[in-house]
Amino acid sequence: MNWKTLLLVGGISAQVFLAPLLQAHEPVTRARTPVRLPDLPGYRTLKCDFHIHTVFSDGLVWPSVRSEEAWRQGLDAIAITDHIEYQPHKADVSTNHNRSYEIARGHGDELEVLVIRGSEITRSMPPGHLNAIFLTNAMLLATDKWQDAIQAARDQGAFIFWNHPGWSPQLTDGQIKWHPEHTQLVEQDLMHGIEVVNGRDYYPEAHRWAIERKLTLFSNSDIHQPIGHDYHIFLGDHRPLTLVFARERSIAAVKEALFDRRTAVYSGGRLLGDERFLRPLFDASVRVLTPQVTIRGRGRAFVQIHNDSDVTFTLERSSEQTDLTVPQKITLPGQRTVLLELRARGTPTAGTRNFALPFRVANALTAPDEPLDVTLTVGVAFTR
Amino acid sequence: MNWKTLLLVGGISAQVFLAPLLQAHEPVTRARTPVRLPDLPGYRTLKCDFHIHTVFSDGLVWPSVRSEEAWRQGLDAIAITDHIEYQPHKADVSTNHNRSYEIARGHGDELEVLVIRGSEITRSMPPGHLNAIFLTNAMLLATDKWQDAIQAARDQGAFIFWNHPGWSPQLTDGQIKWHPEHTQLVEQDLMHGIEVVNGRDYYPEAHRWAIERKLTLFSNSDIHQPIGHDYHIFLGDHRPLTLVFARERSIAAVKEALFDRRTAVYSGGRLLGDERFLRPLFDASVRVLTPQVTIRGRGRAFVQIHNDSDVTFTLERSSEQTDLTVPQKITLPGQRTVLLELRARGTPTAGTRNFALPFRVANALTAPDEPLDVTLTVGVAFTR
Amino acid sequence: MNWKTLLLVGGISAQVFLAPLLQAHEPVTRARTPVRLPDLPGYRTLKCDFHIHTVFSDGLVWPSVRSEEAWRQGLDAIAITDHIEYQPHKADVSTNHNRSYEIARGHGDELEVLVIRGSEITRSMPPGHLNAIFLTNAMLLATDKWQDAIQAARDQGAFIFWNHPGWSPQLTDGQIKWHPEHTQLVEQDLMHGIEVVNGRDYYPEAHRWAIERKLTLFSNSDIHQPIGHDYHIFLGDHRPLTLVFARERSIAAVKEALFDRRTAVYSGGRLLGDERFLRPLFDASVRVLTPQVTIRGRGRAFVQIHNDSDVTFTLERSSEQTDLTVPQKITLPGQRTVLLELRARGTPTAGTRNFALPFRVANALTAPDEPLDVTLTVGVAFTR
Amino acid sequence: MNWKTLLLVGGISAQVFLAPLLQAHEPVTRARTPVRLPDLPGYRTLKCDFHIHTVFSDGLVWPSVRSEEAWRQGLDAIAITDHIEYQPHKADVSTNHNRSYEIARGHGDELEVLVIRGSEITRSMPPGHLNAIFLTNAMLLATDKWQDAIQAARDQGAFIFWNHPGWSPQLTDGQIKWHPEHTQLVEQDLMHGIEVVNGRDYYPEAHRWAIERKLTLFSNSDIHQPIGHDYHIFLGDHRPLTLVFARERSIAAVKEALFDRRTAVYSGGRLLGDERFLRPLFDASVRVLTPQVTIRGRGRAFVQIHNDSDVTFTLERSSEQTDLTVPQKITLPGQRTVLLELRARGTPTAGTRNFALPFRVANALTAPDEPLDVTLTVGVAFTR
Repeated sequence: MNWKTLLLVGGISAQVFLAPLLQAHEPVTRARTPVRLPDLPGYRTLKCDFHIHTVFSDGLVWPSVRSEEAWRQGLDAIAITDHIEYQPHKADVSTNHNRSYEIARGHGDELEVLVIRGSEITRSMPPGHLNAIFLTNAMLLATDKWQDAIQAARDQGAFIFWNHPGWSPQLTDGQIKWHPEHTQLVEQDLMHGIEVVNGRDYYPEAHRWAIERKLTLFSNSDIHQPIGHDYHIFLGDHRPLTLVFARERSIAAVKEALFDRRTAVYSGGRLLGDERFLRPLFDASVRVLTPQVTIRGRGRAFVQIHNDSDVTFTLERSSEQTDLTVPQKITLPGQRTVLLELRARGTPTAGTRNFALPFRVANALTAPDEPLDVTLTVGVAFTR
Repeated sequence: MNWKTLLLVGGISAQVFLAPLLQAHEPVTRARTPVRLPDLPGYRTLKCDFHIHTVFSDGLVWPSVRSEEAWRQGLDAIAITDHIEYQPHKADVSTNHNRSYEIARGHGDELEVLVIRGSEITRSMPPGHLNAIFLTNAMLLATDKWQDAIQAARDQGAFIFWNHPGWSPQLTDGQIKWHPEHTQLVEQDLMHGIEVVNGRDYYPEAHRWAIERKLTLFSNSDIHQPIGHDYHIFLGDHRPLTLVFARERSIAAVKEALFDRRTAVYSGGRLLGDERFLRPLFDASVRVLTPQVTIRGRGRAFVQIHNDSDVTFTLERSSEQTDLTVPQKITLPGQRTVLLELRARGTPTAGTRNFALPFRVANALTAPDEPLDVTLTVGVAFTR
Repeated sequence: MNWKTLLLVGGISAQVFLAPLLQAHEPVTRARTPVRLPDLPGYRTLKCDFHIHTVFSDGLVWPSVRSEEAWRQGLDAIAITDHIEYQPHKADVSTNHNRSYEIARGHGDELEVLVIRGSEITRSMPPGHLNAIFLTNAMLLATDKWQDAIQAARDQGAFIFWNHPGWSPQLTDGQIKWHPEHTQLVEQDLMHGIEVVNGRDYYPEAHRWAIERKLTLFSNSDIHQPIGHDYHIFLGDHRPLTLVFARERSIAAVKEALFDRRTAVYSGGRLLGDERFLRPLFDASVRVLTPQVTIRGRGRAFVQIHNDSDVTFTLERSSEQTDLTVPQKITLPGQRTVLLELRARGTPTAGTRNFALPFRVANALTAPDEPLDVTLTVGVAFTR
Repeated sequence: MNWKTLLLVGGISAQVFLAPLLQAHEPVTRARTPVRLPDLPGYRTLKCDFHIHTVFSDGLVWPSVRSEEAWRQGLDAIAITDHIEYQPHKADVSTNHNRSYEIARGHGDELEVLVIRGSEITRSMPPGHLNAIFLTNAMLLATDKWQDAIQAARDQGAFIFWNHPGWSPQLTDGQIKWHPEHTQLVEQDLMHGIEVVNGRDYYPEAHRWAIERKLTLFSNSDIHQPIGHDYHIFLGDHRPLTLVFARERSIAAVKEALFDRRTAVYSGGRLLGDERFLRPLFDASVRVLTPQVTIRGRGRAFVQIHNDSDVTFTLERSSEQTDLTVPQKITLPGQRTVLLELRARGTPTAGTRNFALPFRVANALTAPDEPLDVTLTVGVAFTR
């Protein structure tokens, strides 16, 4: 029983309820918080992070912690990608490049988190750092020449992507740069994706390259610390996620989706990706609860709009309406309902008309600086 | 655009995402947070508060604030129930007993919150304070004798319930007491319900009386302050709610449900009510996500259990299993998934068997000290 | 006792502590949260809000709620400033312009919150809306001509300031504008201050006017709702405050300080005001905890800096150092200690040298776009 | 600049302040949150945790993470105490028992966190698990017989204490038990302290033994996970701390204080310890801000009480007063001011009298079930 008995007047057995805070937080309940993003027609929306370190390279946690963090934070799949060439803990920790995956995988299996074997090929620019995932034996990537390491990964069927192309220590004259070596890798089927987001950094140029060169978009944490050191996971903050639109929840389906470029970026509360993914994500998240409202005379009406996802969408009006004053901006917080205030403009003719109100979603970009266009449909009955 | 540009090294256009905290909190978005409790077969689960004050008696806010608070906090219906007999602001505020309802109703209509006209008949014990709701004219309740006030309410078709029966200033020799007058009121169809919870107080005796005498259960805030002064609405705390299982979302359906005793209490994270309501509430909230698990040898398996409601359920094991060790206690936080760890007990025969694991829900009571009995069903494959 | 006994194995009396969350939140403890801003030499730093509404004009709470909110939020003084000319509740509420002050004052006295009698003279532009505070009889301001109302206030010794000069309904051709009437008011000693911040809006032009014309700076909430509807007071958000540097904590001292222009703005986590106030506020808030550090060779050292105030200061490096690499930006969260990482630059000569590191405080402005210049002093011993 | 420009009407340059949430949380500022507990006359109050694991035994983080967590959480000193005999990661991680200390120490030195070399001697009961701290070479504790391990520690000058005496796998017939071996260890100067709190468990028997046998009290986390997995460090929760009352902030002073038994427990919001420490902690934390109040007739007065520490004190009235009604219970949240409501009782004679109001501090125990007795002193002027 969780009642708390008050010190009572005259024996009366009134009781006081404990705040629900208590049950959730004392002691900490080991729990998974789902990331609420809708599935798309034909695809499940898997939340993934494909760039993660452990004590087996320069990370600071044991590999099983990565599976536990992923489970608690609602992820479906992670790749463990310790550095092949950089192992500052090697005086104390095994240099077997497969071990971190094996340990993380064991705990992942218990929790039904998909754990993918990967490695970070860690070279100077060009080509910089690349992650190879879906490996069968990471040891084979320990080669002298970077070309051999990449080929060894590809020979295992790996999917390979360029990490943090705008990372400051590897810039060229202070600029992010696509090198001829990257063209070559793409042409030889040795590079299939690119990190558009790494940690808290977004690289618009990488975003453009991904669109132009048909590379798969990635958004990964590149986490080294316990994840709570870098993300306020209890305060609405979230780690960067690569959304994978997969036919099912399996490693094979993730791999198939990556090679087919079915991903989007979810980072810092923003979505980046192709319109064919962002539009259904928005449409399946946002509903007009009151599709029909009445405005009397020069009055107003509130349209109630619910956002069932965890993303807070920021909408900006694309154009004005003849008969209606529509707010210039509306914020749709995740898991909440808000009011869109409509006002009669001028003296509208009496009668009912449908409006497809056009908005741009400022935090859903189909390309750098290109917000997604959406419409909210509402019927308005103008009366006297 | 909501990107925040960093001061950049060498002109590189890396950008940093703003934390999502920003969008939600700056400035405060006027938003409704739904109370997640499932509907029941044939009924909608309406979240209601039938005991609310304004400046028109001894409350401290304008009536429209009550509609706004109700909308923001996910309520479906409220009753405005200012005191008839106690009006400490009368030197400055109108004593028209219908005005607070009228004002609250105006704003409620804009927000689609159902606002019910009520009054608190405020007398010494017996019979104490009673709320009459679904009135047509509150002015008629201003009578000398309490019997006349109650009759005047009933003549308008009102539903009448006893408020805070364990309120300390009205105890009898320090004890909560059912008076002959209350028997009379019930027998004459002049009292139909009772507050089992008022504010943060729970009265087990009132709970027993409600069951024995077939009174409708109520859980109301009796709020006088701005609600944020008494409830930590941003920290997981919630005001007490009367759950009404109604055929539709309308005042008529609420009234029909109240007279038919289709209510439950949701207060301080606890549910109180008849098993016919609590069981389907639990069953529609809690799902076993991994209905089939495998235990190897003397090992363990994790069953993942998701709770889709806002209630944090606290389960205690009712009995032991022959082949399985089951945790004595398990907490199912709202909107989260948790792990139920099962361990092989002794040396179970190999093979797959289904288990209906019996638990008591410590915070769902069908009567004082009578927790709801539930089962979680899981199939276990024992292997070597 | 607040221990929670676990269901025990074998009778052992281990106990589990309840999380501290419990004590603070269940039920809500009525408490005052201080605003931590240091006093200045010779002056107390009083936290004030001089623009507040109640149900006696178009506000939505009873006046005593304003005193309660002020107490809970750590304020020293408030002015109740209901509109003289705009009283939408007059069908139900008294139009005595002194009543809201009297009621708020009664509760303020109990809580030791200073409550000042004021009124908002509410006219079209020019001169727009003006607050008159330290009145003796607000009724005398109900005049036909705005000139008479202002004079009536001044005759009572009132301090008068211009409210929200950039409020959109009163712009001139869409622009904020200083009218000849305002010049006249200032010259005739009938206008002494100006709101540089109203609610969440900041008016840089008003800030410039205040500096040029020697007007007292104000930052007020102009609150109409329960304050929790507009400010996330439990989540680090705060209402706008006028900081008054007063010789003591009394209404007379507040008045003397206002006429002497001893105020600053604290709004949205920013400080605006004269350097003679902002500099000692910063210096009394921020301390270098490790004034002497050692850097070995080309290594690094962490200087620990503590910020004892509630303001989060954002510092940007003003210039580079010869021997040291200093971060371009450093955030000093309120009530926290952070690390300033210094690195050897080039090959510094061995030996100890003191550095006065120059920074601009991005969120402390002495004028629009003019951040406060500060220095952090630290001694560095360079060794091999 | 951190202003956020609104989309503007007519060019007016109003701006909106960003909520302070933004600055603190985006990205996560690496910051230290002090634990606010006052120093005592002659002693600094150091916040310490003497039982901590890393990947070098069965912990899950790299040793430097422990120094970082300690710094962020306001600790002064930690001991790294990996198991000597239990090393489940030995296939992958070095078994050098000194390494975890050396690595943690390196980062601790950068952050000015005191890091103490320790080991957990991990044996079956009796004597169970013991921590030896202030070692010079942990390798020497790897002996066959537990007696030799303890002696090897003591030969290095170690302070030795018994860990989690009520840990369920090591109970005797389900009971916590003091064995003859423990007597022997104490008599031979080989055991000096005992964990009264380990993690979230409190052992009242151990508390009694510590008092009777003059053992130093400990409260340690025994943390294996990243600390954020077990403690809601962003939500007011805190890890268990051993408070050490030391002459200065140095390892030598900690050691001297431990051998002199100058410690107290701070765990789950509770304090346990000798009255000579708890009383000055309370007295230096709690202040009556309004030492003189006036009660008119049968009225009331509010005494304002401020608690400058982080501990939320729960006070219960020890006895009644003749002329005053004093609340039965009062909660003093940390860093907050609350109101103690006094009411005239009966008809007190006019005049001013001082009252020393006696309370028990329910969450400050000098022994199991023995709350600290304190008084709050206030002068009351009774008037007509």
